[in-house]
Amino acid sequence: MPDHQRADARRNYARILAVAEDEVAANGAAASLEQIARVAGVGSATVRRHFPTRRALLEAVSRQRIEALSVRARELTGRGDSRDALLEWLGEVVAYCVSARGLAAALTYDGAGSDPVHDNACSAALEEAAGPLLQRAARDGAVATSVTVADLITLIVGIVLATEHHPDHAVRADRLFRLAVAGLSPRR
Amino acid sequence: MPDHQRADARRNYARILAVAEDEVAANGAAASLEQIARVAGVGSATVRRHFPTRRALLEAVSRQRIEALSVRARELTGRGDSRDALLEWLGEVVAYCVSARGLAAALTYDGAGSDPVHDNACSAALEEAAGPLLQRAARDGAVATSVTVADLITLIVGIVLATEHHPDHAVRADRLFRLAVAGLSPRR
Repeated sequence: MPDHQRADARRNYARILAVAEDEVAANGAAASLEQIARVAGVGSATVRRHFPTRRALLEAVSRQRIEALSVRARELTGRGDSRDALLEWLGEVVAYCVSARGLAAALTYDGAGSDPVHDNACSAALEEAAGPLLQRAARDGAVATSVTVADLITLIVGIVLATEHHPDHAVRADRLFRLAVAGLSPRR
Repeated sequence: MPDHQRADARRNYARILAVAEDEVAANGAAASLEQIARVAGVGSATVRRHFPTRRALLEAVSRQRIEALSVRARELTGRGDSRDALLEWLGEVVAYCVSARGLAAALTYDGAGSDPVHDNACSAALEEAAGPLLQRAARDGAVATSVTVADLITLIVGIVLATEHHPDHAVRADRLFRLAVAGLSPRR
């Protein structure tokens, strides 16, 4: 393949993925591949060349968003108040998990791993990226030193799972997350 | 039916249900009906007369345990420190939800409602029973007045759901619950 064709293919791949992210965020995992092709300004055949199955496309979207959250964790580690930085990042994880639920379910339904939560929605990559962010907050006394990133992510995943049938899922999940941050009944 | 037969039937019903509770707690929803009959000292036909299907038996066990938690909430409302009383009750709800997961899944799998969490595991009956317990703690300043019983139960259900694949489910759920009580990062 000549260089300019390779560059075109890369651009198409990136454009399809960006459009797919928006579509999945707006319409969940049932997002139409035809609609994605249309908005990206490419043919359906081009979408299928890059992503032979719906599953391949959804996995790429999921990977991309987890990677973005990992980048965010590293950015926030160097910034401002350590508690604020950690809570900002955790808030973004809540928002991602809320929007990713349909995604995780679709990936599982397609026949892969039996544990969408750990396989996809909030993966081990996040735990690694957020380590330094949490350690900084713990050093400043904002979080107990015994708390792990896995604790925080598991709690978020639980909140998202328990609220997913609520008509106002995102608002409800955010409320419960804030409650867990403040403590149901912290010692006075 | 003569009175003494009716009394026998009631005793059998109560005995089968009590044994079924223990069996479900020990072996989950797959508990053997034959084993339940044996331990209760009755024939399989007697079990089937009271509980025509496995589902009917599991539903009765579930109702019984939720009723017991409701009774506990009312008992604890009048007792000791309001924060301790509330936390003791919530701890029992965590333990129940951990043991009830298999139950809820079995009831759903059998073809009923699509939402085991709200239909069975932690029902509206609990919310009602725990209202006064929570209000007392809120009056004493141990819990923010904006917190509802539904908030607490949803958070517990989430913790139980997010930890259910953990090899040490009960310990993990209890740890995260304590973390949510204390607060991930309460304001200093």
